Amino acid sequence: MILRIDRLQTEMPPPSDPDPAGAARVQELMGGRFGEMSTLMNYTFQSFNFRNRQGARPFYDLIANIAAEEYGHIELVATAINTMLTGATPPADGKPPSDSMTQLKDQAINPHHFLAGGQGALPQDSRGNPWTGDYVFSSGDLVEDLTHNFFLETGARNNKLKVYQMCDHPAARALTGYLLVRGGVHQVAYARAVELLTGADLTKLFPAPRIPTDKIPECQPHIAKGLHTKLYRFSPNDYKEIVAVFKGPHPETGEPLEVVDEAPEGFAPHDLPSQPAVFAPDYAPEEIKEIAQTLRKKAGLPDEPLGVVASSPGNGGGLADKVIDKIT
Amino acid sequence: MILRIDRLQTEMPPPSDPDPAGAARVQELMGGRFGEMSTLMNYTFQSFNFRNRQGARPFYDLIANIAAEEYGHIELVATAINTMLTGATPPADGKPPSDSMTQLKDQAINPHHFLAGGQGALPQDSRGNPWTGDYVFSSGDLVEDLTHNFFLETGARNNKLKVYQMCDHPAARALTGYLLVRGGVHQVAYARAVELLTGADLTKLFPAPRIPTDKIPECQPHIAKGLHTKLYRFSPNDYKEIVAVFKGPHPETGEPLEVVDEAPEGFAPHDLPSQPAVFAPDYAPEEIKEIAQTLRKKAGLPDEPLGVVASSPGNGGGLADKVIDKIT
Amino acid sequence: MILRIDRLQTEMPPPSDPDPAGAARVQELMGGRFGEMSTLMNYTFQSFNFRNRQGARPFYDLIANIAAEEYGHIELVATAINTMLTGATPPADGKPPSDSMTQLKDQAINPHHFLAGGQGALPQDSRGNPWTGDYVFSSGDLVEDLTHNFFLETGARNNKLKVYQMCDHPAARALTGYLLVRGGVHQVAYARAVELLTGADLTKLFPAPRIPTDKIPECQPHIAKGLHTKLYRFSPNDYKEIVAVFKGPHPETGEPLEVVDEAPEGFAPHDLPSQPAVFAPDYAPEEIKEIAQTLRKKAGLPDEPLGVVASSPGNGGGLADKVIDKIT
Amino acid sequence: MILRIDRLQTEMPPPSDPDPAGAARVQELMGGRFGEMSTLMNYTFQSFNFRNRQGARPFYDLIANIAAEEYGHIELVATAINTMLTGATPPADGKPPSDSMTQLKDQAINPHHFLAGGQGALPQDSRGNPWTGDYVFSSGDLVEDLTHNFFLETGARNNKLKVYQMCDHPAARALTGYLLVRGGVHQVAYARAVELLTGADLTKLFPAPRIPTDKIPECQPHIAKGLHTKLYRFSPNDYKEIVAVFKGPHPETGEPLEVVDEAPEGFAPHDLPSQPAVFAPDYAPEEIKEIAQTLRKKAGLPDEPLGVVASSPGNGGGLADKVIDKIT
Amino acid sequence: MILRIDRLQTEMPPPSDPDPAGAARVQELMGGRFGEMSTLMNYTFQSFNFRNRQGARPFYDLIANIAAEEYGHIELVATAINTMLTGATPPADGKPPSDSMTQLKDQAINPHHFLAGGQGALPQDSRGNPWTGDYVFSSGDLVEDLTHNFFLETGARNNKLKVYQMCDHPAARALTGYLLVRGGVHQVAYARAVELLTGADLTKLFPAPRIPTDKIPECQPHIAKGLHTKLYRFSPNDYKEIVAVFKGPHPETGEPLEVVDEAPEGFAPHDLPSQPAVFAPDYAPEEIKEIAQTLRKKAGLPDEPLGVVASSPGNGGGLADKVIDKIT
Amino acid sequence: MILRIDRLQTEMPPPSDPDPAGAARVQELMGGRFGEMSTLMNYTFQSFNFRNRQGARPFYDLIANIAAEEYGHIELVATAINTMLTGATPPADGKPPSDSMTQLKDQAINPHHFLAGGQGALPQDSRGNPWTGDYVFSSGDLVEDLTHNFFLETGARNNKLKVYQMCDHPAARALTGYLLVRGGVHQVAYARAVELLTGADLTKLFPAPRIPTDKIPECQPHIAKGLHTKLYRFSPNDYKEIVAVFKGPHPETGEPLEVVDEAPEGFAPHDLPSQPAVFAPDYAPEEIKEIAQTLRKKAGLPDEPLGVVASSPGNGGGLADKVIDKIT
Repeated sequence: MILRIDRLQTEMPPPSDPDPAGAARVQELMGGRFGEMSTLMNYTFQSFNFRNRQGARPFYDLIANIAAEEYGHIELVATAINTMLTGATPPADGKPPSDSMTQLKDQAINPHHFLAGGQGALPQDSRGNPWTGDYVFSSGDLVEDLTHNFFLETGARNNKLKVYQMCDHPAARALTGYLLVRGGVHQVAYARAVELLTGADLTKLFPAPRIPTDKIPECQPHIAKGLHTKLYRFSPNDYKEIVAVFKGPHPETGEPLEVVDEAPEGFAPHDLPSQPAVFAPDYAPEEIKEIAQTLRKKAGLPDEPLGVVASSPGNGGGLADKVIDKIT
Repeated sequence: MILRIDRLQTEMPPPSDPDPAGAARVQELMGGRFGEMSTLMNYTFQSFNFRNRQGARPFYDLIANIAAEEYGHIELVATAINTMLTGATPPADGKPPSDSMTQLKDQAINPHHFLAGGQGALPQDSRGNPWTGDYVFSSGDLVEDLTHNFFLETGARNNKLKVYQMCDHPAARALTGYLLVRGGVHQVAYARAVELLTGADLTKLFPAPRIPTDKIPECQPHIAKGLHTKLYRFSPNDYKEIVAVFKGPHPETGEPLEVVDEAPEGFAPHDLPSQPAVFAPDYAPEEIKEIAQTLRKKAGLPDEPLGVVASSPGNGGGLADKVIDKIT
Repeated sequence: MILRIDRLQTEMPPPSDPDPAGAARVQELMGGRFGEMSTLMNYTFQSFNFRNRQGARPFYDLIANIAAEEYGHIELVATAINTMLTGATPPADGKPPSDSMTQLKDQAINPHHFLAGGQGALPQDSRGNPWTGDYVFSSGDLVEDLTHNFFLETGARNNKLKVYQMCDHPAARALTGYLLVRGGVHQVAYARAVELLTGADLTKLFPAPRIPTDKIPECQPHIAKGLHTKLYRFSPNDYKEIVAVFKGPHPETGEPLEVVDEAPEGFAPHDLPSQPAVFAPDYAPEEIKEIAQTLRKKAGLPDEPLGVVASSPGNGGGLADKVIDKIT
Repeated sequence: MILRIDRLQTEMPPPSDPDPAGAARVQELMGGRFGEMSTLMNYTFQSFNFRNRQGARPFYDLIANIAAEEYGHIELVATAINTMLTGATPPADGKPPSDSMTQLKDQAINPHHFLAGGQGALPQDSRGNPWTGDYVFSSGDLVEDLTHNFFLETGARNNKLKVYQMCDHPAARALTGYLLVRGGVHQVAYARAVELLTGADLTKLFPAPRIPTDKIPECQPHIAKGLHTKLYRFSPNDYKEIVAVFKGPHPETGEPLEVVDEAPEGFAPHDLPSQPAVFAPDYAPEEIKEIAQTLRKKAGLPDEPLGVVASSPGNGGGLADKVIDKIT
Repeated sequence: MILRIDRLQTEMPPPSDPDPAGAARVQELMGGRFGEMSTLMNYTFQSFNFRNRQGARPFYDLIANIAAEEYGHIELVATAINTMLTGATPPADGKPPSDSMTQLKDQAINPHHFLAGGQGALPQDSRGNPWTGDYVFSSGDLVEDLTHNFFLETGARNNKLKVYQMCDHPAARALTGYLLVRGGVHQVAYARAVELLTGADLTKLFPAPRIPTDKIPECQPHIAKGLHTKLYRFSPNDYKEIVAVFKGPHPETGEPLEVVDEAPEGFAPHDLPSQPAVFAPDYAPEEIKEIAQTLRKKAGLPDEPLGVVASSPGNGGGLADKVIDKIT
Repeated sequence: MILRIDRLQTEMPPPSDPDPAGAARVQELMGGRFGEMSTLMNYTFQSFNFRNRQGARPFYDLIANIAAEEYGHIELVATAINTMLTGATPPADGKPPSDSMTQLKDQAINPHHFLAGGQGALPQDSRGNPWTGDYVFSSGDLVEDLTHNFFLETGARNNKLKVYQMCDHPAARALTGYLLVRGGVHQVAYARAVELLTGADLTKLFPAPRIPTDKIPECQPHIAKGLHTKLYRFSPNDYKEIVAVFKGPHPETGEPLEVVDEAPEGFAPHDLPSQPAVFAPDYAPEEIKEIAQTLRKKAGLPDEPLGVVASSPGNGGGLADKVIDKIT
């Protein structure tokens, strides 16, 4: 089971200019065959299905623990997409009332971002096709699963590099810069595990694909902090035997690999503003806010929400007023 | 992000007689439209996409926190399936060497449990069709999402009842008994949230479907412990505002709903034995064990694994010997 | 738009011995590529998309009118499946309370008939795969669409013959006997239309596949009534120009083709009994009946329902009592 | 079974400026999870699978009758799409002969509208993904099915509102204006049915989503005619017991709900012109017209087609001549 | 089994201006229901599954031999797509280093061409949906399979005509010009086979769709060479009995159909240049070239590669240097 | 392009006892993610999309050439399935006429083998789900594609081992025995290619999965002939540079790898008998035979068919007579 922490693994920028076409492309990192849904669910199912755990504990711990980190990755991809979609439905721009989305009609968007959702991330890829359970590989054979995972991370890295090149929105760049570094750690971890079990040296393949990570500007701050050599332990008390596998020199830099015995502190997320044109969280969000405040008071909660956010938008009320005006 | 705990939310029985046909049916609770993958991912995406969180904090916390519990539910479904599959490939039964699975050929199994996996759970439904991202509904409209979630839990309850009736394996019964109770709590939570926002009284529908939960033997111990009225907070420090929503009388019993300000303690999982006939974790698991032990010693770990399990099988070595004998 | 008539195009037998495995096979005629969903939706979309209708009115009328008949065919397939599923969950058979479906666990059923539905028909094929919009062909090119339709009916006939051979349940035989005759009429109609437009003589292919329809016992009564030569007009006032196409000799028998200027009278459906084990329409259907009666009285309706059925089961109340007893 | 009437449930505008990108978006209302294919097929299958109809006749009649209305809705969506696509392949614009679609290559179209079809509607959603039978929910449990249907209509309403905002083509606006009003009636009907069976008051949710329908200009004429309070009976003689459920005050306006004991009169469709560039109905439609006329005369039909249309285009012959000229 | 020849069935132009949007449309001819994957796999499976081959040898040979030609067709479609994609990632255009694909973000591309692939063809259609095995029809009934194949070729021809009209890139035009002629031969072949078996005269349908092939400029050179009347035998020694079916007059021109007793000589493909921005075949292709040269020398191969290409680009090394410069 | 040879790469047994359930399982090797459709199409698309071929000729030749061998593998899988299905519809067994398939209704078959096909192989997996183009990986990055291919062959080997264990029909065993050996060669080839490009030693993983191939009885004859060390060149004149990669010692045995400069001679296939109950190739195959003979004579062909088969069944005529008798 899990405990959830309302923080992001890396710092993400606040909304700036919307980029709905870019958001449609970034979806590949969410719901593509090599997206973060795939890494999350592959490692999750492999850990669920792991037999004779006591006999192979370090390997079980490795897969189970990386699975835990991946949950934070789908959260980051969603954050990037939501940030890029914010503001794509301008609340008041001189157009006639009912046309709050007409400017989007001819764009290379994922229409579900607007028609089927509230300008929010989807479990789909860049084509708009849903993620499917058939992307999960869980053979039960430990060496084979680890080999698969190394290959999966390689494909994921390729996709991240491409999305980096295509999408220059700050949120997309912050996302891919971080994921490239962390995915690299997972590649190393699985390669090392295969090596320890079989002697096969996959580390000669690094970096794979062979774009040097340290030349990508958005990766450099993370590398400067050593994030390319650290494996965090995402658990209060479990998965401690990862130290038996994640060790030795980093294949590219030679620096020693290091297990950090706790999760990273993380960063508070930005509170993304309401988008009343798509009814998220409502066409008139101030009403919900009002109800929520009443409930909070009845429950004896303080005036300020207990949840922490990096920045908080207005409640969008004025926005909503304008939209409803436009429709009327 | 999450922290992972290597314990199950409820106690599951150890392997007994294998039931591969039953395991194929239980998959509906994993990868069906109303399975636990769906509840997990619906609430996860809704929480990721939640806008103006500070303005509606209690509702955000509710959805985000229930999402966290659902991760433990897919873990339980996987555990049940894996338990039911254990032993389905008898290691030594007098058959000629190469026929370790011929007895399965004519059964109503999910062939992927054996041909594409290592007798392990799959993100598929009872038809063998994969779970798909198109099962996720995240409109961004808070009232609509909550209404959806209530309906989703209703469908989930229906499916759990049916699986309960069809599958009498102890693992399937333990699973459904627990999930019926916990899913009922989620139904109540979403109904209450809708009621608080709109005044619409969904609780008149309870129980939905209208089979009284307290008459199901495998639900009774959980009800006796009050699990039908408790919402756990699955986070070290977050989602504290769920108390503003999850309150008032239980719609069926009238007992007060209660927030438990921590996760349940959980139960150690059984360490399911190797199944060498399907190479899980290898055809000769003792070799992996030997390597693992060497690595553990090098890392200064104690002789006994740090991970805790409810019961530990033999390493399956003798089993593997027999299988390889059979093939030779 | 349509008017719906609560009658079946042919007489179907009442429930007898259940045949859930057979029902799973009959699904091919519902949701397969060549099933009745496909014929219905192909002709429906072709008629919606028909351009220059006035210029080609007889052909538009032909496709639109056959589409209307096909709605009655999906209704018949559903009726057959529902009939075959009736009784598959025996209400009281000495088994322990909670095992009302255990006997189904190992059978070659479509698990969704029980786990995801209430022993009811599904828009799926015999593999349990859903019907998909990609089965619809609507090129807009009249000759090409008609050629497609002829081929589609040929494939449909092949599937019907196979289901006939595999499933000997009276409902399956009544279904296929009727559909083979009516599908044959559609084959003839499309072949004639192609011939009139292009001169290409498709009628030399008859019967296609070349099993003589008149030798199939369940087809014979319909042939005796001349149903193999008649095209009904399924509309109060429209599609009258089908007479310009559906004419000339039947390719197999030489008898004159005939347009019947109204829909067939039809047959009242059997009122299939409740199946409380799968909560259809509820675990305790007598409650619903009671509410319904109250509502009917308030609305000034007579004691007897206005709807006509061929036979009416008990309300299943005693059945429900037994089931709830078993669970308790 | 059904009778088909060659009229539309509401008046639709004739073709004007083409809007192929808009047509691609409107597809969500056809083949999306919450599109009209879904409402049609959900209610159709629920009515086919309804057990113990006599015991619950008013509810059976309600679902069956609404299913009938939905057929007219997929017809309207198709009409809107076809209207928006008309003229998207300009027949003669000075471009070199073979380039009749090059201008479409870079647009945000659904390529199947042109490459796989004849500028005609598709059973696909706004992503170009096909409608699937897995969108159908038919649990057999009456309360659960009705709850589902209420939620389905809510999702459908959300999508219609979004399509309304994105697509300002007159056909899209006429479509969504009408469907919003009629879908609202179905929401009310299912909410009332749930209330009568269980006492749960869903009407507090209205309007859901909470955009006031009466402020949308294209809805107002229909509201003025009272279409928001009327349920038509779409059958010559059946489904008369809907009066026992569809009654009481409208949840928003308090006006009394009313059953109209017949179908609406409807409106003649426009006869959309040939699009010879996509061979619909042929590259040289005048030939088909000529053959059709000959056949009509042979059949003794009058010179004017018996079918009635709102307006009739030329046969496109001159158009075709130009296209064939261009290719040569 | 097969022998593969490294030549194309027709001459294809070298890369010119890139056309990624066009490449996305051409995918319909690869992975659409009527694309070349479908013709290849339909005839391949029909030939694999052909029973009583000796009894119907000429028909077996016909299907098996056309299947062989179709392999060359998927190769041609891939070649066209790859050619159109070449250059779509400009290596050095003054943009900042990391933006080598930003210009593509807003275009109507198939994002998988860049994000999931290396500017290479995909087994997908123009919507980005994958080809599926459900497009294969193999009933085993010879007459039915042949009827299907005739219809399949008709649909394929329709799609080719549409792609021809939409895509004016030289590679798309060369592709469709050739495929229209060759597909026409297959239509004739299957029509003749049906005629010989049943007497049904499908040739009256020609051309179908009825755009005269000989008026399409890109078809004319192939027609001038008589390619519209010739069926090649794609085998060293087998499938010789096609002569018993492919004979008689061509239905449009009356010219005699002719079997050519060998495969066409074919044309050397262009060696498409590296696209280092998408790492195809690497970010620094000169390294691979260097390794390859070393290996070739060790193996005693001559300095010049043994494979023959129509034209060879530079190795893209300078290109790669620029890209890596940009990233750094 | 290709030349097709009407011979199988290995000798397959004639039909014996039918095994339709086994045939359904063997489908995994055809249409599963790791089936032969996948290996065929992955390498085919990678070769189509290979850029800068002259610069990396040995690697291009390797992938293109293995792709050619894989075509023969899908042929073998189809042959095994067809063989196992032969006789599953007994022509005359005392049952009443119309029940030729009732015995199959309750079995764990793939219903499409009978309902949608003529007892023939399908492009589906063991679940009955179709092969999809999304199984193809073609990143364009040479090292990544080769790494993928190694992993793909590993997964394929796992599946073959499992099918071997589950299916003891002689055709299934002959199939898997051969494919295991040949797939092993491809694993070695891709591992060697990766090693030569990067130095990463994947051969330490052999065998992967680690079941020793030489202990499987059905593999031994092929190993005795050295088929585990040989790569055939499947081309008249191309792909000669594979010698630069496929060399050095076999990772398991140390024997030298060897390129055979031609295709294997192959084996004539058995001519599988008609199955008139499923109309393959017709309900009365003798008629087709008669027509074929007439056509052959007209074409001047000899009395004996030019095609060579291992054994030829009767034409099934008597069989057909019995079937038609039964229906009448």
